[in-house]
Amino acid sequence: MSLGKQTSPLTLTAVATRKESSASTGFERYLVRKLLEFTGDPSIEIRLWDDSVFYGAEKPARTTLDIKNRAAFRSLLKNREIGFGDRFSDGSLEVHGDLVEFLCEIYASQKRASQNPSWQMRLFERLTKRTAKSNTLAGSKLNIHHHYDLGNEFYSLWLDRDAMQYTCAYFARPDYTIEQAQAAKMDHVCRKLMLQPGQTVVEAGCGWGGFARHMAKNYGVQVKSYNISHQQIVYATERARAEGLSEQVEYIEDDYRNITGEYDVFVSVGMLEHVGIQNYEVLGSVVDRCLAKQGRALIHSIGRNAPDLMSTWIEKRIFPGAYPPAIREMMNIVEPFNFSVLDIENLRLHYAETLRHWLARFNENEDVVRNMFDEQFIRAWRLYLNGSIASFLVGSLQLFQMVFARGEDNSIASTREHLYPAAD
Amino acid sequence: MSLGKQTSPLTLTAVATRKESSASTGFERYLVRKLLEFTGDPSIEIRLWDDSVFYGAEKPARTTLDIKNRAAFRSLLKNREIGFGDRFSDGSLEVHGDLVEFLCEIYASQKRASQNPSWQMRLFERLTKRTAKSNTLAGSKLNIHHHYDLGNEFYSLWLDRDAMQYTCAYFARPDYTIEQAQAAKMDHVCRKLMLQPGQTVVEAGCGWGGFARHMAKNYGVQVKSYNISHQQIVYATERARAEGLSEQVEYIEDDYRNITGEYDVFVSVGMLEHVGIQNYEVLGSVVDRCLAKQGRALIHSIGRNAPDLMSTWIEKRIFPGAYPPAIREMMNIVEPFNFSVLDIENLRLHYAETLRHWLARFNENEDVVRNMFDEQFIRAWRLYLNGSIASFLVGSLQLFQMVFARGEDNSIASTREHLYPAAD
Repeated sequence: MSLGKQTSPLTLTAVATRKESSASTGFERYLVRKLLEFTGDPSIEIRLWDDSVFYGAEKPARTTLDIKNRAAFRSLLKNREIGFGDRFSDGSLEVHGDLVEFLCEIYASQKRASQNPSWQMRLFERLTKRTAKSNTLAGSKLNIHHHYDLGNEFYSLWLDRDAMQYTCAYFARPDYTIEQAQAAKMDHVCRKLMLQPGQTVVEAGCGWGGFARHMAKNYGVQVKSYNISHQQIVYATERARAEGLSEQVEYIEDDYRNITGEYDVFVSVGMLEHVGIQNYEVLGSVVDRCLAKQGRALIHSIGRNAPDLMSTWIEKRIFPGAYPPAIREMMNIVEPFNFSVLDIENLRLHYAETLRHWLARFNENEDVVRNMFDEQFIRAWRLYLNGSIASFLVGSLQLFQMVFARGEDNSIASTREHLYPAAD
Repeated sequence: MSLGKQTSPLTLTAVATRKESSASTGFERYLVRKLLEFTGDPSIEIRLWDDSVFYGAEKPARTTLDIKNRAAFRSLLKNREIGFGDRFSDGSLEVHGDLVEFLCEIYASQKRASQNPSWQMRLFERLTKRTAKSNTLAGSKLNIHHHYDLGNEFYSLWLDRDAMQYTCAYFARPDYTIEQAQAAKMDHVCRKLMLQPGQTVVEAGCGWGGFARHMAKNYGVQVKSYNISHQQIVYATERARAEGLSEQVEYIEDDYRNITGEYDVFVSVGMLEHVGIQNYEVLGSVVDRCLAKQGRALIHSIGRNAPDLMSTWIEKRIFPGAYPPAIREMMNIVEPFNFSVLDIENLRLHYAETLRHWLARFNENEDVVRNMFDEQFIRAWRLYLNGSIASFLVGSLQLFQMVFARGEDNSIASTREHLYPAAD
């Protein structure tokens, strides 16, 4: 399947990237200093179009933010997150030096600053107040289309080749390839679910269906996988047919809320981020409705140490409707139905490593991507991948795997030793 | 150390246990049926003083509640939990058949019923509304004294002999003795904390100090342990001296809120239940204040699947001020300080097993206990141990071990494999 050059889903108002010719004003220079202050004085250099430079905590700094013109500067002041993201994408902002290092410095410094905000900072935060979206059935479909229907070919360029897992891998050994780490992730989840041959599994949100095929092939289970991305379902069904797994795996183009039937296992890897916190109890009711009396459930999701809003730029340009929950919020799924949480594991640094692998492949295949999308898209995607690495590295984002079962089920595993078979 | 016969801390108004001679009235029989209904019609038999019998769901039932007189019946109607506990303790209520089985049936049936309460049940619940206590520094001291200062000799009769651990053991192998399982628990916690020789540990709530001595002896760390029970501190200090560990372990008779210094590790096993939910943020601030930048923290506590109040009888007679939190509530400890939860494990069934071991020893030593306390105390304690087994078996109670570290700490373990060294 070959896709022609697509219109970028990141339709930004183009800003000229040529340098502004006039010198910066005294007020503009004052504003740069305030911007640095509100960001907690990170150890970066800011360079304006007239080559005037400014520093946060240290001088010289290892990374530089190059603001090429007034329009980009105004965007940045108006909304730090969206302004930075959009102007980076269109090239009117540039970062010199390591992008992950630059973003880590900004994120960490901003977090420190937000712990003791001045009144000015508080005002600034309020003026750029963020809100979370609500996900209706129709809205979810639109949101998911935005991201996942960019084309299977695009994702196949930089995800693992075997299973096309667009979720955190598990580096059981630090030198694993991304293919090995994704297989290890799937096996880790299967062990947590204690899959037995002949069991039935329902999967909520299946991406390109790689995990369903992995379970069917390696654990002898029957899987039904739900997903609302049309392109992914078409791809997944075709792959299952080609691998002779059509009898064992069924991909259903429908919302998780429409799951029917009873299953030994409920699993959802990387869907919760798109569910919307106001729907967590509904998700719990779906699990309650479809899980057998001695069933196991696992939800794998990006999360937070404490409730917080999504990055507005990521939310607007990359993942509409996405929200990474805190553990407290995940409890809305289980508490109303007397589910018992058996195990929560945080794999934060594994996601940073996963993203590094993705970014490396993305960079290797940049020319191929350029035939599909415009330059703006490539820059946006590069920022998204680098920014995600930085978020997991500084601890703005977590990765939780939560295992749960019915509260009265005493057939639960006694220890977690079975998750760690002796090394080969 | 030998203790004379003590006044029971359970000072109940004595109720005659002789059988009432008059027959039950029609209204009383109506009330028995309502009592069964409000409890969700459990599969038990209720027998009144005039030998009239009543059944819940099934007839015949495997266990019988024998109500010996009107006063006991009235207590039961007035407050199911306290009435049952107090009248069981004084012998005017008796259970025939297996006590754990009887209690499991009641708890499970009550839980099912409370999911779809009738208006009458709701009224009944409201009339016997329960509230949680607040723990001030002085109040905590009183509460803890009530339970833990019953005498070291009393506890040594039925806890494990090596370390006197009055907390959930870990049955890494199902045939472990209680001594092996408590050692396994301590090692499991030490592995989660990744203890290294020379590290400093602060322990909040140390019981008789067994875990502190275990860490010092087996992991070469320096430990400071805080506890507000005078008798326990005296015992712990003496044991450390006798074992030549005085240089490594210091027991401090003080509240966890007064912890000073900086440590590589913060650990608290079985104290959170007594902290009071309104103090969780204070506890978090103590950890934040005393934990090194790359420090590890672990809190081990009885918990719940969802927020709920403590059994009023246990709260009144056994553990004043105790409260088992839901995971959601435990987040109050970590969220305000940007701690990152790395691992939560639920060891619910291990606590049922631990309690079975304790109960067996308690029963074996009943005659010795009888020389210390009155019959009422013995019956109350037996109910407490059996009731706790039942609570963990039906899933009313959970046992959580939560590991956390600072949000920006990237020195965290990559996997949990180190918790499961290959079997010997």
